[in-house]
Amino acid sequence: MTENKPLIDPWSSNNITDYEHIFKEFGLKPFNEEWKKDLNHILFRRNLVIAERDFIKVLVRIKAKKPFVNITGIASSGPLHFGHKVDIDLFRFFKERGGRNYFAVSDIDAYCSRDKILTMKQAKELAVNNLKHALALGLDEKDVYVQSRKEQRYYEFAFELSKKITNNEFEAVYGHVNLGKISAAILQYGDILHPQLSEFEGKMPSITGIGLDQDPHARVTRDVAQRLGYDIEVPSFIYFKHQSGLREGKKMSSSEPNTAIFLDDNLKEAEKKLMSAFTGGRNTLEEQKKLGGNPNICKVYEMLKFHYEDDKELGRIYSECRQGKWLCGECKKYCANFVIKFLEKHQKEAEKKQKTAEKIVYG
Amino acid sequence: MTENKPLIDPWSSNNITDYEHIFKEFGLKPFNEEWKKDLNHILFRRNLVIAERDFIKVLVRIKAKKPFVNITGIASSGPLHFGHKVDIDLFRFFKERGGRNYFAVSDIDAYCSRDKILTMKQAKELAVNNLKHALALGLDEKDVYVQSRKEQRYYEFAFELSKKITNNEFEAVYGHVNLGKISAAILQYGDILHPQLSEFEGKMPSITGIGLDQDPHARVTRDVAQRLGYDIEVPSFIYFKHQSGLREGKKMSSSEPNTAIFLDDNLKEAEKKLMSAFTGGRNTLEEQKKLGGNPNICKVYEMLKFHYEDDKELGRIYSECRQGKWLCGECKKYCANFVIKFLEKHQKEAEKKQKTAEKIVYG
Repeated sequence: MTENKPLIDPWSSNNITDYEHIFKEFGLKPFNEEWKKDLNHILFRRNLVIAERDFIKVLVRIKAKKPFVNITGIASSGPLHFGHKVDIDLFRFFKERGGRNYFAVSDIDAYCSRDKILTMKQAKELAVNNLKHALALGLDEKDVYVQSRKEQRYYEFAFELSKKITNNEFEAVYGHVNLGKISAAILQYGDILHPQLSEFEGKMPSITGIGLDQDPHARVTRDVAQRLGYDIEVPSFIYFKHQSGLREGKKMSSSEPNTAIFLDDNLKEAEKKLMSAFTGGRNTLEEQKKLGGNPNICKVYEMLKFHYEDDKELGRIYSECRQGKWLCGECKKYCANFVIKFLEKHQKEAEKKQKTAEKIVYG
Repeated sequence: MTENKPLIDPWSSNNITDYEHIFKEFGLKPFNEEWKKDLNHILFRRNLVIAERDFIKVLVRIKAKKPFVNITGIASSGPLHFGHKVDIDLFRFFKERGGRNYFAVSDIDAYCSRDKILTMKQAKELAVNNLKHALALGLDEKDVYVQSRKEQRYYEFAFELSKKITNNEFEAVYGHVNLGKISAAILQYGDILHPQLSEFEGKMPSITGIGLDQDPHARVTRDVAQRLGYDIEVPSFIYFKHQSGLREGKKMSSSEPNTAIFLDDNLKEAEKKLMSAFTGGRNTLEEQKKLGGNPNICKVYEMLKFHYEDDKELGRIYSECRQGKWLCGECKKYCANFVIKFLEKHQKEAEKKQKTAEKIVYG
């Protein structure tokens, strides 16, 4: 057995910093500045969407008010955190722009690809919890499907497309992985492509927003789409920056609880995590007043940048931080206040969604 | 990529001759002579069932008149031939002995594992044709399921069990194969194990009759059963000899039309194939009258041994051949007459089953 270490491992929790290298290596295009005018959402305005493959096909449909497939999903190995909110935000954005919506609760994927999820029962309990939060974030229950509760055609299609992937191609992308991860990947290709089957929407452009670390799946999905022998569009992808962890150099990850504020974190706990987050502050108060802070590396500023809707207020914070007028202590309190208010309201909403989530997952 | 050539390739059409070596290598047990008394069927009486794994568990159930799972299937890459009749015969035998019956029409498996089947459409057309013949051979339509038309639980289970197979184990058994074959294998493990889930029959011994070349699947299935975390019995297997091809040194194979008489062969064609089959005759008539023929290597005798029910008459043929009294010419005519009568009746029956087969495969 050879050890092929792939350049990007979609199952790891490492942070990806060397963007340009990856763009060049895998043929990703930086997201076109011009397009952002037509896409009025903070994720575009604030350069949190950074790259794309064939996005123009979807943009054309949006402008022409024609339908397109809007497909995403969550296969988290743990509870949802603020970083996951981006997936939901993008999904909602494309829904409002005319998408035909498919949101996968990826219980089989999570079970098959994650060592720490030991049984399907556990995967489904996690799915209920995650779905409850996703619904509270504004996901419409009508747009949701559960991998373990789909139509027969969906499964048949996943097995069917597996034939179109050679072992060499698969290993070049993922390295030498176990059969559970192969299953999970196959099902994920099926998730993205199945809405274009005649039994569902039929052929049309399709958009999925993913983190850069998920690009290996996107590449194989696009290759398979071209070889399947079905008349479908090669799916488009946009790539968002992952909200980085509250600690330096870490991605927000369900696998590492201290890196993230979870949507079901106790409010005190959430406040504590935020108050001890890594900032762009200077070593001394004096220095900071003189030189200003650095919001570009600050995890507190990043939280606001991803989730705080008011552009004007965010601009003020950025400038005043730069000028040394807005100091880390008050900024942290300000952000903690925002996060706690958000969580308080969110958690009430999530509790109301518990029964619905159970019904969707268990039937 | 390393090239691990497995000892047994379940997808090839080579004949397996070195039985003892394989028994020892993989821990198969020769079928117990004592048991045959309780199993009144030509496949046992005539030593065509040669080996087993854990058969005693099923035998105990048969004797106690308790139920057990009876599961088999056909994933042929082409039309059915006389060699396939053995699968049906064994399945019917275990049904009569109290089996809970699951006969898989393996359309997804056939598509995924066979290069020559290019689309699922083609796999389903083939499935209809094969099923029509299987029904005409006495398979009960109530016992049939189609892989592409199962309950959601069946597919979920197949994905689920994939997690329990390491890539190392898989490659040690099969070598380095493509994702289609991985999918097909996973689904096959699911076929054999799913009847024991609580949603189906629940835990009970299970029997599947296979050719020796299918033992790699049996080994992995048994290993997975033990690691799954479900309370199920490790499935039992019995191994039958494959009827060998009409030509010397070849297995009867859908992939090689001249090696086999197909169930939909034109009667003239079938007769011609049989009349030119390899026999155990001597070089000259004189020699044969003096030394006798050798039925043990004769393809004509083998056809009778597998399918001709009358033990006494078969015994006569064997003895008279040995004694040089029953010569190849008359024997071929005799056998051709049997085959043609069989086919004539069978093909009429198969035509009647066309509509039923279509309904089962397409719904």
